[in-house]
Amino acid sequence: MSVITATISLTTHGHTDIQDITRELARLVEQSGLRNGTVTVFCPSSTSGLTTVEFEPGALADLKHMFDELIPSNRDYAHNATWDDGNGHSHMRASLLGPSLTIPFVEKTLTLGTWQQVIYVDFDIRPRHRELVVQMIGE
Amino acid sequence: MSVITATISLTTHGHTDIQDITRELARLVEQSGLRNGTVTVFCPSSTSGLTTVEFEPGALADLKHMFDELIPSNRDYAHNATWDDGNGHSHMRASLLGPSLTIPFVEKTLTLGTWQQVIYVDFDIRPRHRELVVQMIGE
Amino acid sequence: MSVITATISLTTHGHTDIQDITRELARLVEQSGLRNGTVTVFCPSSTSGLTTVEFEPGALADLKHMFDELIPSNRDYAHNATWDDGNGHSHMRASLLGPSLTIPFVEKTLTLGTWQQVIYVDFDIRPRHRELVVQMIGE
Repeated sequence: MSVITATISLTTHGHTDIQDITRELARLVEQSGLRNGTVTVFCPSSTSGLTTVEFEPGALADLKHMFDELIPSNRDYAHNATWDDGNGHSHMRASLLGPSLTIPFVEKTLTLGTWQQVIYVDFDIRPRHRELVVQMIGE
Repeated sequence: MSVITATISLTTHGHTDIQDITRELARLVEQSGLRNGTVTVFCPSSTSGLTTVEFEPGALADLKHMFDELIPSNRDYAHNATWDDGNGHSHMRASLLGPSLTIPFVEKTLTLGTWQQVIYVDFDIRPRHRELVVQMIGE
Repeated sequence: MSVITATISLTTHGHTDIQDITRELARLVEQSGLRNGTVTVFCPSSTSGLTTVEFEPGALADLKHMFDELIPSNRDYAHNATWDDGNGHSHMRASLLGPSLTIPFVEKTLTLGTWQQVIYVDFDIRPRHRELVVQMIGE
């Protein structure tokens, strides 16, 4: 059993920018030398989150629309009143979606469904450089 | 320390079908031979998710109602326009709820609360056979 | 590799009481004797949840407001009709947010962002004593 920590670097555009990190994650699992275990992906950020989705243009458009509707950007947030940075809605969306995702891998392969991709969603309102933490525990 | 991977097989009806998997999960932990560790349950699917709830008819009805209200089925989704499969809302509900749940176990027992059950929620719109991945890491 | 289990004890006021558990979590990781691994925090409760946020008064007010709006307290819940305990909305908020959070640590330090704190959110409607499960796996 051992612990392997890696990172995924991303350039994001913000405004619910949805990026598919499945391939990079699969590569890190394969390179880890571990056969079976779990990989935890973590966003060291309070304006972005992780989940899975069928990565096709329709579902991505629906996902943006869902967040726009549940947690609109164009309204008052106490966070904005205090800090004047205009990303109050980004913080709320990130807290609701969650910063962490844990996925088992078996025989060096992520146990994802056929139509299921791992996505990083950047809710912030400006382009950013992001480093996700990827940690594998297994044998 | 070791890694044990198992599965839970379910027959689901879709339309926010909520199934209690607590007993099966507890049994897998007990049979694993591990004493202390974490179990990760993962849905290899983009139209279903996992969480916990007090598994009683009132709360289950409220949960269905909550998803119907936050992410209605009877409206336009870009996913449906492209694929014509009518489950755009299922994808959105699954992405929001999340596909993964990690629970510690201690002395072979899940650390759940007295009124807390682990549920699998199938948001798809037809009956399906599902295989959840259950992975335990511990000693 | 080993597994260390600890707890965090909290006194909460309910009604979406948001408590910062970052410092206590960091202390438990440091005291564990483990260098690298993941920590899983788990709520043994069906009326509370975990996530991360920038812990400042504006964002906390926004978070309470978000839950009040998405899942209002002042409406009918089937759970309340059955049990007459008035916390139907607490159960729904808890199920949506989720009871579990997994965070990698590296060189004895949680991999959190600079403006990111770990929060426990108690949605119940009365003061409670809570015990969170904190489990570290690593080497």
